[in-house]
Amino acid sequence: LLSKLPATGVTIFTKMSALANEKGAINLSQGFPDFPPDPRLLERASQALLTGNNQYSPMTGLPLLREAIADLIARHYGRNVHVADEITVTSGASEAIFDAITALIKLGDEVILFDPAYDLYEPTVTLAGGICKRVSLEAPTFRPDWQAFEATLTAKTRLVLINTPHNPTGSCWLAEDVERLWQAVQHRDVYVLSDEVYEFIQFNESVVSVHKHQRLAERSIIVSSFGKSFHLTGWKVGYVVAPADITAELRKVHQYVTFCTATPLQQALAEHLLALPEESAGLAGLYRQKRDVLRNALANSRFHLLPCDGTYFQLLDYSDISDLDDVAFCEWLIDEVGVAAIPISVFYQTPPNGQRLIRLCFAKEDDTLVEAAQRLSAL
Amino acid sequence: LLSKLPATGVTIFTKMSALANEKGAINLSQGFPDFPPDPRLLERASQALLTGNNQYSPMTGLPLLREAIADLIARHYGRNVHVADEITVTSGASEAIFDAITALIKLGDEVILFDPAYDLYEPTVTLAGGICKRVSLEAPTFRPDWQAFEATLTAKTRLVLINTPHNPTGSCWLAEDVERLWQAVQHRDVYVLSDEVYEFIQFNESVVSVHKHQRLAERSIIVSSFGKSFHLTGWKVGYVVAPADITAELRKVHQYVTFCTATPLQQALAEHLLALPEESAGLAGLYRQKRDVLRNALANSRFHLLPCDGTYFQLLDYSDISDLDDVAFCEWLIDEVGVAAIPISVFYQTPPNGQRLIRLCFAKEDDTLVEAAQRLSAL
Ligand SMILES: CSCCC(=O)C(=O)O
Ligand SMILES: CSCCC(=O)C(=O)O
Repeated sequence: LLSKLPATGVTIFTKMSALANEKGAINLSQGFPDFPPDPRLLERASQALLTGNNQYSPMTGLPLLREAIADLIARHYGRNVHVADEITVTSGASEAIFDAITALIKLGDEVILFDPAYDLYEPTVTLAGGICKRVSLEAPTFRPDWQAFEATLTAKTRLVLINTPHNPTGSCWLAEDVERLWQAVQHRDVYVLSDEVYEFIQFNESVVSVHKHQRLAERSIIVSSFGKSFHLTGWKVGYVVAPADITAELRKVHQYVTFCTATPLQQALAEHLLALPEESAGLAGLYRQKRDVLRNALANSRFHLLPCDGTYFQLLDYSDISDLDDVAFCEWLIDEVGVAAIPISVFYQTPPNGQRLIRLCFAKEDDTLVEAAQRLSAL
Repeated sequence: LLSKLPATGVTIFTKMSALANEKGAINLSQGFPDFPPDPRLLERASQALLTGNNQYSPMTGLPLLREAIADLIARHYGRNVHVADEITVTSGASEAIFDAITALIKLGDEVILFDPAYDLYEPTVTLAGGICKRVSLEAPTFRPDWQAFEATLTAKTRLVLINTPHNPTGSCWLAEDVERLWQAVQHRDVYVLSDEVYEFIQFNESVVSVHKHQRLAERSIIVSSFGKSFHLTGWKVGYVVAPADITAELRKVHQYVTFCTATPLQQALAEHLLALPEESAGLAGLYRQKRDVLRNALANSRFHLLPCDGTYFQLLDYSDISDLDDVAFCEWLIDEVGVAAIPISVFYQTPPNGQRLIRLCFAKEDDTLVEAAQRLSAL
């Protein structure tokens, strides 16, 4: 059986969470909250299940949910999107990204992404027959080098894949980065796929989103995640906003991949968004506080803390502690320290020589963060 | 924007359900029950949401659910499958089929399917770079012609896509068909993808499944659907059983398409299956009764009823009523008779000349079926 993805194994998240469970380590590896979602949202979901519709939703998503999404985008970004033709609900942000790449990328098309990048982009491009070109991001800020980016654009470039706030580094673009991207692509036949699943977890004063750049937005596919924004990564409800012509192609794939997403969960999210339209605005405050709990608790450790401007991930440099490579160091941490982290070399095509960085997820109860930090500070 | 699926529009299900809603017609088009699932299952789901885990499940599915699935397969088919390596929970049967085709089919590979076939197979093969070859099924029995099948096999054939009970025709294979398939493929490097989402809705005495043919099962990917088996098409939980080497490849795709499926819904299904292991055995009785309600209520109409041995779909021949093609006839039925049906020509690569068949879904309350049949009998 010849593999179409010979380089792909089980993801690092599956590996590390399984190891953490097996060894009883504190799991700061895979990104998910260990605290419950808003009980009012759960109550709505329970009601939708018990008394509502448990059959297929429309392929594009429940109309009420898509209206609530349009509302959210208008309030947060001042952008008006067309409910019927530009918004599609998907089974998580992953499916949205998969659908977009599968719909747009043909044999030999080039896709630019940054290095490091979230693990699912490249294999998805490979399955579609595309070729990934990577532009390096340098620690500690991981801001794009726009000259290097422009040098990577070719006549074959079809798509640019961006991700801000950025997983795994916790870095955020500035508004000027969005503008630089626009200038680089505006005269080309290139689309932008913007993975903004951590959109509401930005700690800088000025929030950045492609939604705010009207002209770039008109050729972009922008992906969001209710899992990240409402602490329910296990519901697998995301959505994607794209111009009507791209949306039409993306939906052709979506209708054959999953067709639609759990109806009662969509219904609950719709009602919740309409009842509490401001809730997502509080997310950054919650996670800033958690970031600071973790950072303060690590202040006297031998780890170096990199800047963290968004996401619920904090990078640590362990060069003063160990010479192990980051995968080996993470395995050692689970065994010897009882803390599970994510090695970031796995997100790179070309990991920088001698870089020693691991990622901690701080979407956890404060006590958990403090306990993990204490264990790490003993090193 | 060049389409990768230029021949694909919105599916017939989306079109007909939307028309039915718009015109207030009785919707016997898209296949879904209009009655609620077991309230005990809904209660379990509600509890799982309110008090359980709302974060990512393992990528392969909740272990408890996979154990319950292995149990179900052992009880119904006497087959032992390996929980860790052979069972994967997916976001509906659609995702399972998409994952399997995407993992196995490479540029230029040939896939054999029967004509008519469910609408998602062919575009999925096309996206993967494969080529579909169709073997005609002839009304009224729609049993495969195994000589024609064998003549279609070539050195490039990589996959055979089968579907019994069969959508849209309601026909079922006999055990000898499974054996004929095995004999045709046993010495070849060919896999079988068996879409068995209506496995528990078979009205013949002897239930047919690839699970019962151990040697064929060892090179088959068998897809099942909780949506169909528990009246909750809107939960989008399915599963796929395949040998370990194929499962490993299929999971590489699955982990990037959706990663996992709604955790609380998986938990509820696991508990329900373990508490009421015999429930799915009652499904055939329920739907046989509904089929007969519909058939009896149409007995004096001018439609000819084709045999229906499985699924919740009944084919009607309307040649004595109208010369319209089936798409036009279905539109006319919605407007003039207030009943929505599915034209079956859309499932064909080569619709037989002059064939006039429509599909009715009988997964509906008896009153709804009788009311629809009365309207149709007035023609
Ligand atoms: C789908 S599991 C991975 C969760 C996540 O996004 C991360 O840990 O980076
Ligand atoms: C995913 S909507 C189609 C439902 C169905 O399987 C059918 O009507 O045939």
